[in-house]
Amino acid sequence: MKLVPLGDRVVLKQLIAEETTKSGIVLPGQTKEKPQQAEVVAVGPGGVVDGKEIKMEVKVGDQVIYSKYAGTDVKIEDDEFIIVKQNDILAVIQ
Amino acid sequence: MKLVPLGDRVVLKQLIAEETTKSGIVLPGQTKEKPQQAEVVAVGPGGVVDGKEIKMEVKVGDQVIYSKYAGTDVKIEDDEFIIVKQNDILAVIQ
Amino acid sequence: MKLVPLGDRVVLKQLIAEETTKSGIVLPGQTKEKPQQAEVVAVGPGGVVDGKEIKMEVKVGDQVIYSKYAGTDVKIEDDEFIIVKQNDILAVIQ
Amino acid sequence: MKLVPLGDRVVLKQLIAEETTKSGIVLPGQTKEKPQQAEVVAVGPGGVVDGKEIKMEVKVGDQVIYSKYAGTDVKIEDDEFIIVKQNDILAVIQ
Amino acid sequence: MKLVPLGDRVVLKQLIAEETTKSGIVLPGQTKEKPQQAEVVAVGPGGVVDGKEIKMEVKVGDQVIYSKYAGTDVKIEDDEFIIVKQNDILAVIQ
Amino acid sequence: MKLVPLGDRVVLKQLIAEETTKSGIVLPGQTKEKPQQAEVVAVGPGGVVDGKEIKMEVKVGDQVIYSKYAGTDVKIEDDEFIIVKQNDILAVIQ
Amino acid sequence: MKLVPLGDRVVLKQLIAEETTKSGIVLPGQTKEKPQQAEVVAVGPGGVVDGKEIKMEVKVGDQVIYSKYAGTDVKIEDDEFIIVKQNDILAVIQ
Repeated sequence: MKLVPLGDRVVLKQLIAEETTKSGIVLPGQTKEKPQQAEVVAVGPGGVVDGKEIKMEVKVGDQVIYSKYAGTDVKIEDDEFIIVKQNDILAVIQ
Repeated sequence: MKLVPLGDRVVLKQLIAEETTKSGIVLPGQTKEKPQQAEVVAVGPGGVVDGKEIKMEVKVGDQVIYSKYAGTDVKIEDDEFIIVKQNDILAVIQ
Repeated sequence: MKLVPLGDRVVLKQLIAEETTKSGIVLPGQTKEKPQQAEVVAVGPGGVVDGKEIKMEVKVGDQVIYSKYAGTDVKIEDDEFIIVKQNDILAVIQ
Repeated sequence: MKLVPLGDRVVLKQLIAEETTKSGIVLPGQTKEKPQQAEVVAVGPGGVVDGKEIKMEVKVGDQVIYSKYAGTDVKIEDDEFIIVKQNDILAVIQ
Repeated sequence: MKLVPLGDRVVLKQLIAEETTKSGIVLPGQTKEKPQQAEVVAVGPGGVVDGKEIKMEVKVGDQVIYSKYAGTDVKIEDDEFIIVKQNDILAVIQ
Repeated sequence: MKLVPLGDRVVLKQLIAEETTKSGIVLPGQTKEKPQQAEVVAVGPGGVVDGKEIKMEVKVGDQVIYSKYAGTDVKIEDDEFIIVKQNDILAVIQ
Repeated sequence: MKLVPLGDRVVLKQLIAEETTKSGIVLPGQTKEKPQQAEVVAVGPGGVVDGKEIKMEVKVGDQVIYSKYAGTDVKIEDDEFIIVKQNDILAVIQ
């Protein structure tokens, strides 16, 4: 099962922030504030969206910063994704 | 009786999520949070909508993810549909 | 007395939903939730509306689904109509 | 004293709804809900308004239905008028 | 000291409504509801404003009706003016 | 240290209203309502801003009236400035 | 690890205001109101953004004033940045 985004939409998978305590125990990031870092898992075709030509600038595998509150959370077979418009992606992390 | 959507509108039929308990009993999805997955049952002709040329990208039978809160619920002879603009469809599931 | 809509406006007459009880008594639909089905009784000429060329797609006699809360209720000589923009008509029922 | 509207504005004079009781007494419509019917008393020249070419479609003497809450009430020498944009006129009554 | 408005702005001076009581005493209009009538005292050059070509239609000395709540009140050396955009002027009184 | 505004922005310095009491004592204007008069201290280059060509009409030294609540207050080395878009300047005082 | 902004976005690093007390002790600016001064650390490529051609006017190392409340705070490996659109940068400090 695969998500194929329409137009200028991008499917993101949030990166789980892990935290190592001083004693070396790794705590999964669930109770921390939701990070805005995510990995691109699918990219729409771009083209004319809402009357404007959009060229897609991100690609699958990019690690990105996206805008807080942007996008729609989607759960497919226990996997959670965020679908955003490319314009809600602020920067690529290199 | 058939719904023929105008412009860039798309008629969706929500997919009923079923859940199988560990003992094997299938529970229909009615008490769960409304899923955002639906099947396309009719597609408008597209064309110039609100001054912008819209090309329809989805087709009847596509399973799609649509934007939460988008669209209008319609009940025709005990069948329930959601009519959305194509722009409220985020992704096709393959 | 006749309503001639301007621009991209359409005059609708709401269809009264009737309900037959099991004993065969017909109950007029007044206490039920307002249906969104209506019949087109007059169609504006279209043309340039708010700077955009609008082509009228519905015709007198069409049964349509229109957007909840859209339009203006008008009472002319005890007849009630709804005047909507064509863009608030979601689908034609065939 | 005369009101000359600018651009796409139209000066309306509300029609006073009268009601005849069964005993034949005519009650002026003051305590009833404000009707949305009015007569056109002056029409602006149209032309380019807010960057869009507007052609005036109504003329002095037309009886029209206008959008609830639209327009500005104006009192000139004890006469009350409503100044609306043509786009707030929904239909002409014939 | 003179106010020279920019773009499509117009400087107005509110007309003071006077009221004569039955006994002939003239009451200045200060406690009455603010009238929307004013005299044009300065007119901007028009031209391209916010990407749209604006042609000025009013001239100094015109008595006009302007939109309630529109504009900015300005006090220059004890004189009070209202600066509005021409689009907030509804009609000229002749 | 100098502020160089971008695009259609203008740096203003508010004029301090002074008030002379009848006994001749000059009271600085701090407790009075913030005046909307200011002097232009720097002017952006204009050009294409938000897709629209903007020509700068004010110049350094102009005394201007600007729109209430517009702009951003900035404090640089104990000097306070207001940075507004030229469109928030209503008129030049001559 | 490096932030590469998309479109017309700019990555800023806030300047820490320091304050020296009369006795010469330097107080870091943490308890003071957040200053709006920042240094540009990365600049997007510009180009067509939301259908409008944007030319980037700031460069890495510029000290700028940016609009209060604009932008998104981002924390990357204990460094905090603000990502804004170039249009939220009001002026360059020289």
